[in-house]
Amino acid sequence: MEKIKVGILGATGSVGQKFIQLLSEHPYFEITSLAASERSAGKTYKDAVNWFMQTPIPEKISNIIVSTCVPNMDCKIVFSGLDAGVAGEIEEDFAKAGYAVISNSKNHRFDPDVPLMIPEVNSEHLELIKEQKYGKGFIITNPNCSTIGLSIPLKPIDDLFGIETVSVVTMQALSGAGYPGVSSLDIIDNVVPFIGGEEIKMETEPLKILGKYNNGKIEEAKINISAQCNRVAVIDGHLECVSVKLKKEATEDQIIECWKNFSGEPQKLNLPTAPKFPIHYFEQDNLPQPKLQRNIDKGMAVSIGRLRKCSILDYKFVILSHNTIRGAAGAAILNAELLAQKGLVG
Amino acid sequence: MEKIKVGILGATGSVGQKFIQLLSEHPYFEITSLAASERSAGKTYKDAVNWFMQTPIPEKISNIIVSTCVPNMDCKIVFSGLDAGVAGEIEEDFAKAGYAVISNSKNHRFDPDVPLMIPEVNSEHLELIKEQKYGKGFIITNPNCSTIGLSIPLKPIDDLFGIETVSVVTMQALSGAGYPGVSSLDIIDNVVPFIGGEEIKMETEPLKILGKYNNGKIEEAKINISAQCNRVAVIDGHLECVSVKLKKEATEDQIIECWKNFSGEPQKLNLPTAPKFPIHYFEQDNLPQPKLQRNIDKGMAVSIGRLRKCSILDYKFVILSHNTIRGAAGAAILNAELLAQKGLVG
Amino acid sequence: MEKIKVGILGATGSVGQKFIQLLSEHPYFEITSLAASERSAGKTYKDAVNWFMQTPIPEKISNIIVSTCVPNMDCKIVFSGLDAGVAGEIEEDFAKAGYAVISNSKNHRFDPDVPLMIPEVNSEHLELIKEQKYGKGFIITNPNCSTIGLSIPLKPIDDLFGIETVSVVTMQALSGAGYPGVSSLDIIDNVVPFIGGEEIKMETEPLKILGKYNNGKIEEAKINISAQCNRVAVIDGHLECVSVKLKKEATEDQIIECWKNFSGEPQKLNLPTAPKFPIHYFEQDNLPQPKLQRNIDKGMAVSIGRLRKCSILDYKFVILSHNTIRGAAGAAILNAELLAQKGLVG
Amino acid sequence: MEKIKVGILGATGSVGQKFIQLLSEHPYFEITSLAASERSAGKTYKDAVNWFMQTPIPEKISNIIVSTCVPNMDCKIVFSGLDAGVAGEIEEDFAKAGYAVISNSKNHRFDPDVPLMIPEVNSEHLELIKEQKYGKGFIITNPNCSTIGLSIPLKPIDDLFGIETVSVVTMQALSGAGYPGVSSLDIIDNVVPFIGGEEIKMETEPLKILGKYNNGKIEEAKINISAQCNRVAVIDGHLECVSVKLKKEATEDQIIECWKNFSGEPQKLNLPTAPKFPIHYFEQDNLPQPKLQRNIDKGMAVSIGRLRKCSILDYKFVILSHNTIRGAAGAAILNAELLAQKGLVG
Repeated sequence: MEKIKVGILGATGSVGQKFIQLLSEHPYFEITSLAASERSAGKTYKDAVNWFMQTPIPEKISNIIVSTCVPNMDCKIVFSGLDAGVAGEIEEDFAKAGYAVISNSKNHRFDPDVPLMIPEVNSEHLELIKEQKYGKGFIITNPNCSTIGLSIPLKPIDDLFGIETVSVVTMQALSGAGYPGVSSLDIIDNVVPFIGGEEIKMETEPLKILGKYNNGKIEEAKINISAQCNRVAVIDGHLECVSVKLKKEATEDQIIECWKNFSGEPQKLNLPTAPKFPIHYFEQDNLPQPKLQRNIDKGMAVSIGRLRKCSILDYKFVILSHNTIRGAAGAAILNAELLAQKGLVG
Repeated sequence: MEKIKVGILGATGSVGQKFIQLLSEHPYFEITSLAASERSAGKTYKDAVNWFMQTPIPEKISNIIVSTCVPNMDCKIVFSGLDAGVAGEIEEDFAKAGYAVISNSKNHRFDPDVPLMIPEVNSEHLELIKEQKYGKGFIITNPNCSTIGLSIPLKPIDDLFGIETVSVVTMQALSGAGYPGVSSLDIIDNVVPFIGGEEIKMETEPLKILGKYNNGKIEEAKINISAQCNRVAVIDGHLECVSVKLKKEATEDQIIECWKNFSGEPQKLNLPTAPKFPIHYFEQDNLPQPKLQRNIDKGMAVSIGRLRKCSILDYKFVILSHNTIRGAAGAAILNAELLAQKGLVG
Repeated sequence: MEKIKVGILGATGSVGQKFIQLLSEHPYFEITSLAASERSAGKTYKDAVNWFMQTPIPEKISNIIVSTCVPNMDCKIVFSGLDAGVAGEIEEDFAKAGYAVISNSKNHRFDPDVPLMIPEVNSEHLELIKEQKYGKGFIITNPNCSTIGLSIPLKPIDDLFGIETVSVVTMQALSGAGYPGVSSLDIIDNVVPFIGGEEIKMETEPLKILGKYNNGKIEEAKINISAQCNRVAVIDGHLECVSVKLKKEATEDQIIECWKNFSGEPQKLNLPTAPKFPIHYFEQDNLPQPKLQRNIDKGMAVSIGRLRKCSILDYKFVILSHNTIRGAAGAAILNAELLAQKGLVG
Repeated sequence: MEKIKVGILGATGSVGQKFIQLLSEHPYFEITSLAASERSAGKTYKDAVNWFMQTPIPEKISNIIVSTCVPNMDCKIVFSGLDAGVAGEIEEDFAKAGYAVISNSKNHRFDPDVPLMIPEVNSEHLELIKEQKYGKGFIITNPNCSTIGLSIPLKPIDDLFGIETVSVVTMQALSGAGYPGVSSLDIIDNVVPFIGGEEIKMETEPLKILGKYNNGKIEEAKINISAQCNRVAVIDGHLECVSVKLKKEATEDQIIECWKNFSGEPQKLNLPTAPKFPIHYFEQDNLPQPKLQRNIDKGMAVSIGRLRKCSILDYKFVILSHNTIRGAAGAAILNAELLAQKGLVG
């Protein structure tokens, strides 16, 4: 199969760099265009970027001339890692011009006709695209980094036992704040018990994600979620302490089993970025830990541990997921792979 | 007033060192004896200890000859920073021999006749001492470090509005694990979502602390507590994300006001180690933080922030307290000061 | 003695905040004016600043209205914590208008008539002020943070034995880069072997500092210095590995003794910010360490350890000094105290 | 080619774990035996080990029964990651019993008939084996972690221009201290300017490594090395600030070129663990950095940057190498691969 040409919006930012790193040897996609702000436009990528990934800039990328974010790029798909301040309008412009826009930004997540998609969880939401008014182009989005880590483990539980209530306290990694992001003076020997706008995302996005597609619309799930978000001195990997109240009774073994058996469209279609098992459950008391499990299945699997009874809700457990891979760039790429396999682009 | 002679059990350990640091210029107490394991006995303190406090060993302490932990020390009070593995029996031996034992260890916390005391919260529990069978000697204990930080803010709320349920997720400092404690390889760029034995302490100790003294006994409080404990890369200062369900309605302002007005015996008696205000409330979104607030009032005050509605329980908020001062050595010293002021020692 | 009114230029920056923290209870000085950029001017200090010191904003400072940096402030002395980009001209304007300008910025350090002063080392350089053409006003500067830590230990060695050559490799703290300064993503689990402009400062400033005042001029010292500067994940405290070649032979004991005996004008005049002993020498193999020694003598003393033979030059040793106190704000304040005691201001 | 059976001595320790991680899919070698202390003997490996590598225990290894370190293991080569306290004698026992002993321990490094080998640097030292008196068996060693990183860049310079003097200051990673190694309380927000025994290794080992093999002996190189070693809060990757004095003049370009062109036996023989280029030179001012370059070429390449004139010696520069791969387990494996390719085992 000939590779599909893709472009990256916000190519010099932290999400943009991660897109480039993950797409550089992709079997479906070939990066042909890079776009960023005026300041970078006209320069080669290697001159425009302050590259801080831990692998070097891919050879064939480094000399691409960066353009501005206007929809005359030679590609079919654009991955958007744009800041929320500018993403909304630019993404619409590209959709109107016929591009498939795969966005990691928050702006269109709650548009009623835009899928807020995690392919293992709600691939049927893709149907929403038909409702969009952009013509040939369209927009799909992936959730916030901390929401993805939470929603994947909730999905099989909700399917089997129903979820009423979710209490979650996060310990989130620094890479989630972008670059330069959090000052070292603010976080070494410290925790910051606040991340602007994060709690409301965690309390609302899962309702759309776990909602049912019905006749051109998503009916949101009825779950009561309360979130408390903290920033800790970890480079990559969000850890979440979760309690849930179920609608039906479930044993610990049933819950662990439903996690271990969980799998979705990406696994069925054998998508290149899909983890073999979306969820790994660990029996050891002190797992999962960011440093030890964040890279499992190339950072695309969610790790869970410490499932036990909660005296207030029903069960509590600990979730770990890689925030810039499973929770951002990898999530968007998996969305694009699903589109490609379904013949919706290219 | 002549100073009361005090001794320290477990003087070379991390809690022991903190006792020495905090007691070296104390207006009531004078350290006259130091005891530790066989390995240290017979050496001068400065030769026996691997001192890692950030102030030097007090001059007059450094040449005290360390003894073993047997009750023939020249002092009236012993502060115990012993490991739980040995604390139980040694502390009893000292009590039987007529010493006032001020323990930071867990062994006797749930003895029905031993106060589990935070002087601001339950100084009336001191009455329990009369029930002890040790003769002139007795044992009083302070709670676990993470419990103290939690119990102080709960007390005034419970008094005014009643507490039904508490959900707490902690991010605990490394000094809580003693020295050498947590390996740097385990915690840099990481979080460990497990601290052995900690959750059960947080779920049970507050029930005794907030219980009522009645006729020689403590009637435990009826509160349902669920705890999840994590270790983070912070040197000092435990942060706790808390949700509470109240028995009576309360507004945010009422809760903040009851915290700001909170005060107890140590403040009334003007005890030397007592914080002027046991609780400080911060209005800024991103406070309290370990690095910024842990040392308020010499580490003896608890800081709170982010009080807001919880969609599951009633309110959620963030607590910070210094785990080795308010949560350990400082707590024990405050207990001893209360005893001294009440004429129960000396 | 009536307190001397002082103002702070660059009051909202990291050095400015440190000035305020250190001056808030000063026996000689009273902060009456605060100046910063246009963006802050007109606001109360507490609204203009992103305060990140570990003690709260002093009460009486928080409501001062911030002005712009123009020389109509009601004070005699201005402390300048301005960025090098603007400091040069503003400081001259204040000197011309009759203010005593105590600068921590690099701009005027090498003006031939401006003292580059460490009061323990070269207080006689104050004579240079007479050469300045500003009228009643004048400028004095303190060296770069890493230079101060190096120059103090070199001074007594140079006086007694003469120094030919100095090789120094630094491990510098994050607070030296200001706020927000170094991104947490760049320094956690990392070292950055480069600090822009730092090495040349360390190789040239000591030559003026250790130079001789002679007839209105400084004759620079003839020492060959080679510096390599690194940024490490430490909040405060610069560590420096030094080797020196002497002109005359010296024993280890002689060198340690000359450090222990070292003292200067600030000690003689008993200046409030002066450390009792400017240099502390530690015998233990693994000292000094930033976390353990940076705060000695309120951060104004330099700690040294590990003096031993070097097979290339003559001796090697390790230096530690607090970069924002001894190396910046505290240094400037000590300069101002010297001026005040000598009757040169007020 | 049939795989050669290998065993690991000290299999549960940190170097042992790294051996297992690196050897689990090796084209030449197959792990058939694991040995450790009495405490572990008789257990399956997965039960005996506190595994803390970031990839899981290889499936086929986890159920191997651990034996004690006695020479009746079913293999031809043993890799030794034993502590220096026991390594000396045990390694001799295995050599006498006919095993090829590939040691990472320091005990036999200076035996006159034992190669202290870095295959790119001194593969001709293998001739020494013939001098050993162990019969069919023999011992070869690799240098200390910080020495390897230093010796590789020195080799091509020494060959072309001659080296007279080397001054080196290290900033070494935590993994070099083994597990649990350095307490988190000792290193977060800190640097420790001392590593026991490390400086003498760096000052002496390169002399043997860069020595000439001549008629059954090594004539040590005549280089004057002075080292200062520091421990920093980095997980993996030793950084070294180096100055060198050359015997002949060299330009910066000549030095960079000799590094870029450097290559040795492992590259010629295309050994599986050999880096394609043993040395990478970076032009950017702020490179190399542990986090960015430690994993280049699977951790087997040395990274260099910042070559510039030194005013005392001739040139200064910065070196980075992965201490547990290039500097320990990977080094030993490369030694074994060289032996295998030369037909000296199997």
